[in-house]
Amino acid sequence: MTWIDDPEFAADRPFGPQTLPYGVVDGGEGPMVAVRVGDHALPLRSVESALGDELAPVLWAGSLDPLLAAGQAVWTALRDRLQDLVTVSVAPRGATLLPLAGLRPVLAFTVGDYVDFYSSRHHAENVGRMMRPGADPLLPNWTHLPVGYHGRSGTVVVSGTDIVRPDGQRRGPDGPQFGPTERLDVEAEVGFVCGGPPARRVPVGAAAEHIFGVALVNDWSARDIQGWEYQPLGPFLGKSFATSIAAWITPLDAFASARIPVVEPDHPRLDYLVEDKPWGLDLSLAIEWNGTVVSRPRFADMSYSCAQQLAHMTVNGATVRPGDLFASGTVSGPEKEQRGCFLELSWAGREPVTLAGGVQRTFLEDGDTVSITATAPGPDGSLVGLAEVAGTVVPVQEP
Amino acid sequence: MTWIDDPEFAADRPFGPQTLPYGVVDGGEGPMVAVRVGDHALPLRSVESALGDELAPVLWAGSLDPLLAAGQAVWTALRDRLQDLVTVSVAPRGATLLPLAGLRPVLAFTVGDYVDFYSSRHHAENVGRMMRPGADPLLPNWTHLPVGYHGRSGTVVVSGTDIVRPDGQRRGPDGPQFGPTERLDVEAEVGFVCGGPPARRVPVGAAAEHIFGVALVNDWSARDIQGWEYQPLGPFLGKSFATSIAAWITPLDAFASARIPVVEPDHPRLDYLVEDKPWGLDLSLAIEWNGTVVSRPRFADMSYSCAQQLAHMTVNGATVRPGDLFASGTVSGPEKEQRGCFLELSWAGREPVTLAGGVQRTFLEDGDTVSITATAPGPDGSLVGLAEVAGTVVPVQEP
Repeated sequence: MTWIDDPEFAADRPFGPQTLPYGVVDGGEGPMVAVRVGDHALPLRSVESALGDELAPVLWAGSLDPLLAAGQAVWTALRDRLQDLVTVSVAPRGATLLPLAGLRPVLAFTVGDYVDFYSSRHHAENVGRMMRPGADPLLPNWTHLPVGYHGRSGTVVVSGTDIVRPDGQRRGPDGPQFGPTERLDVEAEVGFVCGGPPARRVPVGAAAEHIFGVALVNDWSARDIQGWEYQPLGPFLGKSFATSIAAWITPLDAFASARIPVVEPDHPRLDYLVEDKPWGLDLSLAIEWNGTVVSRPRFADMSYSCAQQLAHMTVNGATVRPGDLFASGTVSGPEKEQRGCFLELSWAGREPVTLAGGVQRTFLEDGDTVSITATAPGPDGSLVGLAEVAGTVVPVQEP
Repeated sequence: MTWIDDPEFAADRPFGPQTLPYGVVDGGEGPMVAVRVGDHALPLRSVESALGDELAPVLWAGSLDPLLAAGQAVWTALRDRLQDLVTVSVAPRGATLLPLAGLRPVLAFTVGDYVDFYSSRHHAENVGRMMRPGADPLLPNWTHLPVGYHGRSGTVVVSGTDIVRPDGQRRGPDGPQFGPTERLDVEAEVGFVCGGPPARRVPVGAAAEHIFGVALVNDWSARDIQGWEYQPLGPFLGKSFATSIAAWITPLDAFASARIPVVEPDHPRLDYLVEDKPWGLDLSLAIEWNGTVVSRPRFADMSYSCAQQLAHMTVNGATVRPGDLFASGTVSGPEKEQRGCFLELSWAGREPVTLAGGVQRTFLEDGDTVSITATAPGPDGSLVGLAEVAGTVVPVQEP
């Protein structure tokens, strides 16, 4: 019987002792590094005496930056120690439990480079069918490499941050016109937060040394802006206004029971993308639009793993640094109710989505809220959670 | 008669008192913020007593980060004070002049987001002709907005850093193959370093509040990797291995005599891209390949200014932060000897370039060095310089 009195802190709930995600919260006295236990936050500084003085720079920081930089040995040791500490029957001296409802989440780390992949075949094919009708839905490079591009790290925001509808150029009947996007969309993605020593050419087998944890990402997208701007150099302003990331990052170690192979292509992979062991993750996502679950994408349908993405991203000699973030790309499955964005769900706006009460939607309206959550199988039949990433659309702000 | 005894510190030389670029140098005792005077560095901390105590956090920093954050009023005041200080006849107390030859240049600031534009019509048309033969060389969006994309800020390196030839996937006769790029190229660009308070929706008229200075950039590019990967989301590994930036950043204020209009399109611009005054820059670039000048691009041929690029980049509500860097895109002119990359100069490898001694080149070979320099008209007939950005190619490093 644990000292933590919270019904959500249980093996069959997403944030039991099997999960223990890290985040940064502010209860009015500045940002504090914490671990989530059910619906409470346990500030790590409050249990410093149980964790050891040598971890002070990590525990007393206002962000996860020192923990990300500390590397895999520290990540494993700290997690082991915390798992002991939250399952004993007597509270460690000083331990403070703060209800999440009273805390403001803070972006947990300084985002270095942000890369967004495109690793769901179903998503890529659906977009291809809509954008290039009549042509092969998948471009020839797609099955050979994890297509990706750099996003804007300076506009990564923590879950709960309002999303201001962006202005921009889009195609009009008589040339481009300027104004608020009329096709504001989400992309349900799984993000990977990097840490450990800066490195280049990280082989798939070394991914765990450089991937600290996993967090849901919503890559908000303005489809009309994107559609006009994106050739030939890719998405830019259609994406760069905001990317939301969950407040809590679940350690990679929590997913040991969720590892599965990714979908293989129908040809051999180049050597540097061949995995030593399964690096896919059996995550079940749910997308809620104003409270109605509109899609349940499965991460098992992805064609590239985080280890392959990291290997690809660094195989040219590019460094990966603590705080770098990369996301999977929109997670879409073969079925309509598994599509990970509203462009696909509404088939470019032609097939409205019905929400609770019969309300119909194609793209996002001001005031709409989208929340994405996910779970994975944990050890011994438990459930491992990924904290929600949520945001509400607010009207464009004219200068 | 100035106290600075350096023949390069003269009005008709690029680094006279009209220029005064900032950089960070290390003479063995750690990085120091300095201003360049001719072929010497003047560490700002050495003249603290003449500059004022209130600037101590800027002067004693190991990077330009505090100066970038300080904002336009501080930039102007410091430059005014330095211009006085370097032109008086008696050296200020404590002033230390260090010959550049004995110093190691250091990347001068923490790069936030790095955006690369594509604002030379000649470059875009040349690339279009090579990549999409038979089609319109310019895509329809190009004359309406400054096309751009995000690059990798973590691999921005200071001039002088060796460039390791990248490995990667490229098209082969029987599907993709992996290995060192066979089409390593340069892109001669002009970079703009951002500062001032974080801001969104920066109108063209406010650009000077958010652009600290100008520095040459070489956006090294692996054309075979890029050509295979870049559809549909843009360049990624073909660019992300390295981007070089000059060690010295020339303040925007130094270019007051170099302001010219950019090339106008043959249709009206959307309002947010209309300039209140000329924001183009009359810069003359020179590209040296192993000591032979192979091209002299003119920045006057660009179709979008830094103010338009910044306005576009932030019009969707994206923030610009101190340390953000954006580059103009390859600077190419209408003539062959004004092309800003070797892809264009060699017309995709079909027309070799002849260097000194009759040596022929299409793309870069290991051991090759490329250096890019530029000057602009300064006040009273003087010359304002942009410090060189240089790099030498070294062989691929297998893991």
